[in-house]
Amino acid sequence: MRSLKEIEELAIAPDRLLFSASAQEIKEGWTTDIYFVKAREILKETGLDKVPVTAEVFARHSGILAGVPEVKNLLQDTGVELWSLQEGEPFREKEVVMRISGIYDNFGIFETALLGILASSSGWATAARQCKDAAGTKKVVCFGARHVHPAIAPVMERAAIIGGADGASCILGAKLAGREPTGTMPHAVILILGDTVKVADIYQRIMPEGAPVIILVDTFKDEAEETLRVAEALKERLSGVRLDTPSERGGVTPSLVREIRARLDLGGFSYVQILVSGGITPERIVVLDRAGADSFGVGSYISSAPPIDMTMDLKEVDGKPVTKRGRIPGITHSPRLKRF
Amino acid sequence: MRSLKEIEELAIAPDRLLFSASAQEIKEGWTTDIYFVKAREILKETGLDKVPVTAEVFARHSGILAGVPEVKNLLQDTGVELWSLQEGEPFREKEVVMRISGIYDNFGIFETALLGILASSSGWATAARQCKDAAGTKKVVCFGARHVHPAIAPVMERAAIIGGADGASCILGAKLAGREPTGTMPHAVILILGDTVKVADIYQRIMPEGAPVIILVDTFKDEAEETLRVAEALKERLSGVRLDTPSERGGVTPSLVREIRARLDLGGFSYVQILVSGGITPERIVVLDRAGADSFGVGSYISSAPPIDMTMDLKEVDGKPVTKRGRIPGITHSPRLKRF
Amino acid sequence: MRSLKEIEELAIAPDRLLFSASAQEIKEGWTTDIYFVKAREILKETGLDKVPVTAEVFARHSGILAGVPEVKNLLQDTGVELWSLQEGEPFREKEVVMRISGIYDNFGIFETALLGILASSSGWATAARQCKDAAGTKKVVCFGARHVHPAIAPVMERAAIIGGADGASCILGAKLAGREPTGTMPHAVILILGDTVKVADIYQRIMPEGAPVIILVDTFKDEAEETLRVAEALKERLSGVRLDTPSERGGVTPSLVREIRARLDLGGFSYVQILVSGGITPERIVVLDRAGADSFGVGSYISSAPPIDMTMDLKEVDGKPVTKRGRIPGITHSPRLKRF
Amino acid sequence: MRSLKEIEELAIAPDRLLFSASAQEIKEGWTTDIYFVKAREILKETGLDKVPVTAEVFARHSGILAGVPEVKNLLQDTGVELWSLQEGEPFREKEVVMRISGIYDNFGIFETALLGILASSSGWATAARQCKDAAGTKKVVCFGARHVHPAIAPVMERAAIIGGADGASCILGAKLAGREPTGTMPHAVILILGDTVKVADIYQRIMPEGAPVIILVDTFKDEAEETLRVAEALKERLSGVRLDTPSERGGVTPSLVREIRARLDLGGFSYVQILVSGGITPERIVVLDRAGADSFGVGSYISSAPPIDMTMDLKEVDGKPVTKRGRIPGITHSPRLKRF
Amino acid sequence: MRSLKEIEELAIAPDRLLFSASAQEIKEGWTTDIYFVKAREILKETGLDKVPVTAEVFARHSGILAGVPEVKNLLQDTGVELWSLQEGEPFREKEVVMRISGIYDNFGIFETALLGILASSSGWATAARQCKDAAGTKKVVCFGARHVHPAIAPVMERAAIIGGADGASCILGAKLAGREPTGTMPHAVILILGDTVKVADIYQRIMPEGAPVIILVDTFKDEAEETLRVAEALKERLSGVRLDTPSERGGVTPSLVREIRARLDLGGFSYVQILVSGGITPERIVVLDRAGADSFGVGSYISSAPPIDMTMDLKEVDGKPVTKRGRIPGITHSPRLKRF
Amino acid sequence: MRSLKEIEELAIAPDRLLFSASAQEIKEGWTTDIYFVKAREILKETGLDKVPVTAEVFARHSGILAGVPEVKNLLQDTGVELWSLQEGEPFREKEVVMRISGIYDNFGIFETALLGILASSSGWATAARQCKDAAGTKKVVCFGARHVHPAIAPVMERAAIIGGADGASCILGAKLAGREPTGTMPHAVILILGDTVKVADIYQRIMPEGAPVIILVDTFKDEAEETLRVAEALKERLSGVRLDTPSERGGVTPSLVREIRARLDLGGFSYVQILVSGGITPERIVVLDRAGADSFGVGSYISSAPPIDMTMDLKEVDGKPVTKRGRIPGITHSPRLKRF
Repeated sequence: MRSLKEIEELAIAPDRLLFSASAQEIKEGWTTDIYFVKAREILKETGLDKVPVTAEVFARHSGILAGVPEVKNLLQDTGVELWSLQEGEPFREKEVVMRISGIYDNFGIFETALLGILASSSGWATAARQCKDAAGTKKVVCFGARHVHPAIAPVMERAAIIGGADGASCILGAKLAGREPTGTMPHAVILILGDTVKVADIYQRIMPEGAPVIILVDTFKDEAEETLRVAEALKERLSGVRLDTPSERGGVTPSLVREIRARLDLGGFSYVQILVSGGITPERIVVLDRAGADSFGVGSYISSAPPIDMTMDLKEVDGKPVTKRGRIPGITHSPRLKRF
Repeated sequence: MRSLKEIEELAIAPDRLLFSASAQEIKEGWTTDIYFVKAREILKETGLDKVPVTAEVFARHSGILAGVPEVKNLLQDTGVELWSLQEGEPFREKEVVMRISGIYDNFGIFETALLGILASSSGWATAARQCKDAAGTKKVVCFGARHVHPAIAPVMERAAIIGGADGASCILGAKLAGREPTGTMPHAVILILGDTVKVADIYQRIMPEGAPVIILVDTFKDEAEETLRVAEALKERLSGVRLDTPSERGGVTPSLVREIRARLDLGGFSYVQILVSGGITPERIVVLDRAGADSFGVGSYISSAPPIDMTMDLKEVDGKPVTKRGRIPGITHSPRLKRF
Repeated sequence: MRSLKEIEELAIAPDRLLFSASAQEIKEGWTTDIYFVKAREILKETGLDKVPVTAEVFARHSGILAGVPEVKNLLQDTGVELWSLQEGEPFREKEVVMRISGIYDNFGIFETALLGILASSSGWATAARQCKDAAGTKKVVCFGARHVHPAIAPVMERAAIIGGADGASCILGAKLAGREPTGTMPHAVILILGDTVKVADIYQRIMPEGAPVIILVDTFKDEAEETLRVAEALKERLSGVRLDTPSERGGVTPSLVREIRARLDLGGFSYVQILVSGGITPERIVVLDRAGADSFGVGSYISSAPPIDMTMDLKEVDGKPVTKRGRIPGITHSPRLKRF
Repeated sequence: MRSLKEIEELAIAPDRLLFSASAQEIKEGWTTDIYFVKAREILKETGLDKVPVTAEVFARHSGILAGVPEVKNLLQDTGVELWSLQEGEPFREKEVVMRISGIYDNFGIFETALLGILASSSGWATAARQCKDAAGTKKVVCFGARHVHPAIAPVMERAAIIGGADGASCILGAKLAGREPTGTMPHAVILILGDTVKVADIYQRIMPEGAPVIILVDTFKDEAEETLRVAEALKERLSGVRLDTPSERGGVTPSLVREIRARLDLGGFSYVQILVSGGITPERIVVLDRAGADSFGVGSYISSAPPIDMTMDLKEVDGKPVTKRGRIPGITHSPRLKRF
Repeated sequence: MRSLKEIEELAIAPDRLLFSASAQEIKEGWTTDIYFVKAREILKETGLDKVPVTAEVFARHSGILAGVPEVKNLLQDTGVELWSLQEGEPFREKEVVMRISGIYDNFGIFETALLGILASSSGWATAARQCKDAAGTKKVVCFGARHVHPAIAPVMERAAIIGGADGASCILGAKLAGREPTGTMPHAVILILGDTVKVADIYQRIMPEGAPVIILVDTFKDEAEETLRVAEALKERLSGVRLDTPSERGGVTPSLVREIRARLDLGGFSYVQILVSGGITPERIVVLDRAGADSFGVGSYISSAPPIDMTMDLKEVDGKPVTKRGRIPGITHSPRLKRF
Repeated sequence: MRSLKEIEELAIAPDRLLFSASAQEIKEGWTTDIYFVKAREILKETGLDKVPVTAEVFARHSGILAGVPEVKNLLQDTGVELWSLQEGEPFREKEVVMRISGIYDNFGIFETALLGILASSSGWATAARQCKDAAGTKKVVCFGARHVHPAIAPVMERAAIIGGADGASCILGAKLAGREPTGTMPHAVILILGDTVKVADIYQRIMPEGAPVIILVDTFKDEAEETLRVAEALKERLSGVRLDTPSERGGVTPSLVREIRARLDLGGFSYVQILVSGGITPERIVVLDRAGADSFGVGSYISSAPPIDMTMDLKEVDGKPVTKRGRIPGITHSPRLKRF
């Protein structure tokens, strides 16, 4: 896509399956803000489209950087020089996280896309890091795919793992991060079979030997009662139980975890672990950890984390320091940036 | 994708451009949570995979529904009966927005994707509606693409228009909503050319006759001074000015809008409109409207709107009312749902 | 008890069962503050012990008056003239609720006791009235005996009924108010028998025909599951279920009440009522009523209600208006007082 | 009282003096909640009334334990084994304060009474401890009898002394704690005699030699003026003055105490102590102490202290660990409990 | 004073009595900010010192205008045209309260002085108006001279009367407002004579017949006691008592006023009025009025009222609309201004 | 002025220029509260006008003392002995700051004036000290004359210097403190000449060699743009720029200061200092200092500082300790007071 005219002519295919853009559409510039196309035309008009510039990207808040590989792929073939913090590195408020030097016309069109990649991925990675910091050596698994559009569910779950999550349930997301997806079972299958113990029994049979068996215990009965029924049925084949008490019943509380732990121990099932999920936040991880939870399934806290606003500013044009009002002109001294 | 085995075998292509999923990958189930695949295997084991069920989707908070066409496309060929509120309709807290009846095995795998589509799209549409409600008859344009991943930037901008935005700057987003993209110009082109009046002059020349000419006036000089310079240069060809004052200079304030309006009127430019952008929220729209702003460019408020959490519950299995603890069993009386 | 000397000689019986005072000890003045005995001796010394005085009792806060019959009994045989608001009447902040005219020496010794009776009883009655006002036509039962000393548990429960409670579980308290005590069963009996349905079955058998059968359903299992088990076992003999969910499980919530109501109705048990208890306050009565609760067991809110501070001031001595600094001398115009 | 039938037959004597229960009535079970009687009948029906059980009592908040001797007396002759913290010992939130092992039928009926004794007495003792902690080596005297029913005024004042109060004004309360009651004089006697100095003079004459002479100085005149008049009249016979300024005149303030101290010292009366009363709390004790007050009369803060909610749970039945949902089954490890 | 050179030469007289400026010094410009003198020299250098300009004064907050006569006097002989709201008129936030047209050099030097006059006088007048609005038909007297420098005490008290106060105690202040000063007596004279009644007696003797006799009753004794002593001594010659209870004794409270009123009425002195002072604010006027106070002596609330910030902007130079950034150029439409 | 009669006869001159009092009027007593004149007459009547007394002045809040020289001048010729803290010394809450011994009639008439002098001057000095403490070694200049009446503008600015300000713009104020006034230029002169650079150029020419040249840079253009224009025009003759951004444009922010500093340094103007003004408070000084500001012009924070309420009490009359209710009689031990 090279001009306003092409935009005018663009038509949407009537049998388009989804509204999300394909990698090809993004690479061709169809998801950019239209004013970058206008900018291109103005510069061409004045013969300044080949001027060398340097741009810097800085973040409005501190966080963990993610999305760098996608930006790198987008900019390959543009001839620019790319400096950046590393994928997964922390950055401070207003710190420069990326610097691009090259012909403006070659990369200006990607400003919208690259800011969007960094802003959203860093938002997710930062939230995951906060959870992991709260959980210490215990496991954090990302269960957030159900809150975001499926086109980016894998981007989000991969970013969560970059940020520090130990696993993810979205198949493609886990695979992108080099992991196998992890998860238990939905309430639906228990409702269809009508009994948790029955489901548990089949589950352990069909799972490959050695694979962990974690059973959801809050569908029909009180969690404590169901936990003991399942533990007695599966014996040593049971790895853990998952508590996902709905908010209508008060959600998962520290008292509940403490009681389940005690009843498991009393029954001789001290090897059974407790996985908690449902509205988990760093603050709740701290108290549930203290109550005895062994791992944490985190959804909205990661998937609904607000993007970390990124801004790109031109800092040099044709070798001279410039910038708009309100910013400091010239290249910022940023020794942590590495050349890609 | 039909089994745990296939998942195990999935490998990521080494030259994959981006982490986002293509429509094909989504349709094949690669972005689902793994536990839905496990559920499928358990049901097959017990011969219950063909049992008819009814599921309902309800929202945790009130809002504006968006994403229905994508869900419909995902479910075509599954043989299910789909009931839903209409795209763009308002819903209340805990109201049922969608009902699906059919063989569980045929649609269970899409739970993650369809909840994600509805949750995120409705979140964006709802935020856009709040802006439009605040703006009344004045225009709201969505400028949020730069805060989200480019794979869903068009989904977001289209949802904003469903919610009530009058336009969008993301090319593909506007097109999906049947509009032409709108926008002015980036600060970068002004920095490269070195003078706003010069940019304005070229801009009006290359734009087709009749197209609105809106100039960004905060790059180098005080907004009031630059506004008058541009107005005097372009005369009646100037449609409007855009104020995007950076937060380092206090952002766009009601006093600034009032002063620009007064200075334009004093100079005989009462036909020039004022477009404001930068941290715009419904609350700020109200006060800037009163101060004389003519249109509003909204970014983060729409693009960072949290998803509206959606939950899918089985309410009938094989004709009998069921559901998990904490919910009311059986089909909910929902006369507003329409059959698709 | 007539003098400081007698006080010095008082000895506590070594086999005294409890520390609470008997009616006889109170009538003889042993629970008064010692300075009233000193006052008596000073007045006797000056020959002023027979001077006629008028005293008024006023309340520091508004409320519902209770305790008047006990005060009347204490003052019988003292020759005083007693004016008072009626048992159960509301009073305003600083309103005079009682006036006593007579020989000071005959009633001064009872100041401590009569203020204590009115302050504590009115505190309880006022709290009960707030609950009843919130419950409207639905029933409020006082379950607070376990938070107060048994010597006054009946005083408290009777005062609650004066204030508006429909019943009380303390045997003597209910009887004093002319009611039969009401209540269900303790968790202990269910724990000993090991199954709620078994307890329910015996309970309905031993209860006289026509007596309501209300079963506690939160001991072992999820409330919804246990409710249906009991309802199916007792059928039409079941009058209601009592929800007393411990705070460790989130207490009784509006969602829980709504679900139990729906599951009972679905099962054909719409005649079964829902009694809620555990941390009930007027605010919670309002929301639980709206969710479908039929009656309310209130404990601490009534039994821990702070006493309403009462003050007695001399307002006339020997026919002349007097009073201490900070108060208005002379008899207050109080047309609502009635002569006893 | 052994059955529901006896309860039905219970009639209140028409000449009953007060509503409070006698020790005999409590011992016979008339103040219990009726559901314990129902429990007894159900157990008898199933032949389980003689089953051995272990129950534990724990407190909802931390505090100072009081009421143990009354509980011990109630349980004598029941054959149970009683373990408890000591009278006056501190306990933590949710700590087990008492354990009872025995035949359930023998002690179940006393649950209401013993929880009520411990809850209310510990509430009072805890409040008194807070006052004493604030006062350090200075004296705290309990003046709260006028806010509670006279049947428990002695229970309350004794508990205050257990908690740390140095004295009490209720005759029977002080005696139960092995002290002589302390107090000054009521405003009434000053109003009747018409002059504070005159009352002071008689008072010192009738008091035994060596007994402290403390005069109330706020009835008619400014406290500073009256203090000097009394000091000059009684000379070295005056031990102290009591400031009880009514709230209508701003209550007792640190400035007032400081001024009275200074005027006493200027007049050569540095041996006269200052006792303050009226709305005294631990916070106010701290500032009044610093201003020069010598002792503190505390009323409502102790007498209106809310009971500390106590809960009794069965933790073993017939040698097996049990308990209801939300609690940990089995006997709690509580090494601080001592066998009685 | 005409130049920087004269400023350099200015020397302070060694026997100068006070630091405040005389009217002569102000008129000559010695209290102006030095940059106005620099401005004058710059304009003279460019020959623009005789250019005609129009300046407007606006207020940052709403209030009551005061100080206009002083501004008028300062500007007489400068040849300017003066438009203004009237002395005592209310103005709104940002409303133009004054407009000056003329040769800049003739009045620029007075900017500091005239803004200071208007800002401080309007601050005082506004506070007084708030008090009067609270007092309704009852009297408000300004007692604030002791909180401000004596050079402006009369300015302040006169402004208070402009704002609505009924009187003032500062002799010159009251006289400037055309009133006779009002006031009672200081505590000092009562301390020297040693008895309030004695002072009261002399006071009524030396006051001219018909002049009100108001006695201060809180020096030595409780206010209620002293009030009655004075009332009995002066009988019908007593017009009122003044309550000025120090904050160390809780200040003047509604309860105190109510009690004094009742005791006066009981004693047959219903004609004696109650004047209250000490920390009086509009809020306290409302509650003390309701309690029966007849007039209010207000000090700090008026005298410490913050100045209402006034700003002077040039809006026209040589007939052309100008102004600085952030303001609207050109003369503001202000129909309420009147030509002086 | 010696009597009530003289007061009655006082008439205001019809051609009086201002309402402020001259030093002569103050010395003669015309600004005193009238009740001191009444006191004088009462004392004369009883022959007690020559009694020796001692009075003490204490402050309601802590602060910095100012105004002592004026008090000393007022009391010269009265024969009293004056003890005081020194001008500029800190004092604590309720500390005695001044003691006066002598014939009451000789100085009583000055109570109003001397309290007013100390209260207002100490208020200003204290606020200035807070600013200076925040600024550390950087300069604080008082620009507050425009908020107060010109009669006391010099008193205020001198007090600010006593408190710690490094300079003042009011000519007479600076001179009284032994300094030369400092300041830049008003916006008016820039508006009249129409260009900041032009004004700057003339300004540097007319200023004596060596005098600092500080230019106001926010009148017409963006501060950053104007700063560079001025710096390039004046080169090394430019000492500093003053930022006084109006609140309508967000006021002076740390970001603005940081940017101006960076742009000056980039341009080679690192010797140019930044002076900030407009709504400066100690809190803002701290953040602007950190952002790079070099000096601070403070207005309202100093000039609108509330007076520190001062109270004068008689503590000895004729050698005997006295005082009114609520205070401690007799001379306070105050070793920091020095004899004047």
